Amino acid sequence: MCELMGMSANVPTDICFSFAGLIKRGGETGPHKDGWGIAFYEGKGVREFKDVDASSTSELAHFVRRFPIKSHVVISHIRQANSGPVALENTHPFQRELWGKTWVFAHNGQLKNGVRKQKLSRYRPVGSTDSEFALCYILDQLQKQFTRYPAKGALFSALHEHCLYLSKFGVFNILLSDSKYLYCYCTTKLGWICRRSPFGQARLKDHDMVVNFSDQTTPDDVVTVIATEPLTDNEDWTPIQPGELLVFHKGVVSGKISAASTQ
Amino acid sequence: MCELMGMSANVPTDICFSFAGLIKRGGETGPHKDGWGIAFYEGKGVREFKDVDASSTSELAHFVRRFPIKSHVVISHIRQANSGPVALENTHPFQRELWGKTWVFAHNGQLKNGVRKQKLSRYRPVGSTDSEFALCYILDQLQKQFTRYPAKGALFSALHEHCLYLSKFGVFNILLSDSKYLYCYCTTKLGWICRRSPFGQARLKDHDMVVNFSDQTTPDDVVTVIATEPLTDNEDWTPIQPGELLVFHKGVVSGKISAASTQ
Repeated sequence: MCELMGMSANVPTDICFSFAGLIKRGGETGPHKDGWGIAFYEGKGVREFKDVDASSTSELAHFVRRFPIKSHVVISHIRQANSGPVALENTHPFQRELWGKTWVFAHNGQLKNGVRKQKLSRYRPVGSTDSEFALCYILDQLQKQFTRYPAKGALFSALHEHCLYLSKFGVFNILLSDSKYLYCYCTTKLGWICRRSPFGQARLKDHDMVVNFSDQTTPDDVVTVIATEPLTDNEDWTPIQPGELLVFHKGVVSGKISAASTQ
Repeated sequence: MCELMGMSANVPTDICFSFAGLIKRGGETGPHKDGWGIAFYEGKGVREFKDVDASSTSELAHFVRRFPIKSHVVISHIRQANSGPVALENTHPFQRELWGKTWVFAHNGQLKNGVRKQKLSRYRPVGSTDSEFALCYILDQLQKQFTRYPAKGALFSALHEHCLYLSKFGVFNILLSDSKYLYCYCTTKLGWICRRSPFGQARLKDHDMVVNFSDQTTPDDVVTVIATEPLTDNEDWTPIQPGELLVFHKGVVSGKISAASTQ
């Protein structure tokens, strides 16, 4: 399996603290040693780093950990390969363009091979993972449904429907973004924490590191971090419910569709 | 304007030496201070670094210069902004997927606004440069012409035709790759050098640095570097002719279509 981490914030914020915890799980405190990747949105642009090495020992990961890139949406992933060999083209996150937006996607879980019977028209996988196939499927469906970026309600509903469909093939915890929204769909495990004023201290679970966010923030900052497993051990993380799509914008919940609402 | 650099090699090769020369031109020995980017193919996967800072002072560029990434195709660009403000989404190289391949593109030159009257169907620019628009145009045309990756001759001819068309709107020196081939189209300035056994010394123009390639290579290595301006001052660089598409594969010329051949 793999682990996911994401961030949505109302001001460009660096993710160095959380990333320092996550990368330890890539071969040191966790078994996810088959590559890692992180994508930072800066405006509409995306800056991405990825590597097939274990993140705990990757020279590039340690550079990124010390390099405070300010971003409003971040998606990161550490991989334990199951579908597709260890290779750069199989390393999350994956990117595609739709409606003039760069979409970034990372997946935790595994989908049965049956998922590949879905016909793809516009988007094709470059690598051999079920995850990249799933991204292609979602965007293929969206471009058939909408010729341009649709209204928020219609987009969220469509995404929930496609995630629900894909989750019939297996575990499908994902982070997806179009640069504005951060979409989190959960079938088994994904949780979040929203940090806002008054800011306190946070202590990493996987690394001997404590940060006092009040030293680094202004009172108006709102920063939400999403992760497969809580990254800190002194804060209350909220689990996302199975079958739920939770959408963040500028650090706050902008939409929520639960499994029940479409059944 | 901007400067381009590319590499095609028959064995995964690092580009640290050439990149060390190129990045000096981004704000130090040259005026191209509005961002830089470099994409490395590793198999079918792509690893990309980009930044809106001047490459000569960018901390990330200096990391990349010291980090020997082995690749068989590289495309790099340093930018002096003309079309589109300085922003990550306007920083070359640009990427899109077609036929399950990641296409990477960088452009030197400027196209008149009239180019934007071309109708795009599948691909849309994320940023506001003429260059990203041109990539979208080329791939849009290719996906209309061919439902899958076509035979080499048909692909090269189609690409030459689309480049020739776009060059009617202005200066269009480009590097483009689909992970296998490196396509170089020239309207004004682009040259190349092929290094193979017996390897000799090369001396950078922009940096006090000499390398003896015989220390770093095996007798079978073939490495071609393409650049807007020669990067070394003790080697003979071959200019690509205006209107010519030159295609490299594994370091050697795999196809060549001159302006005359289609007139």
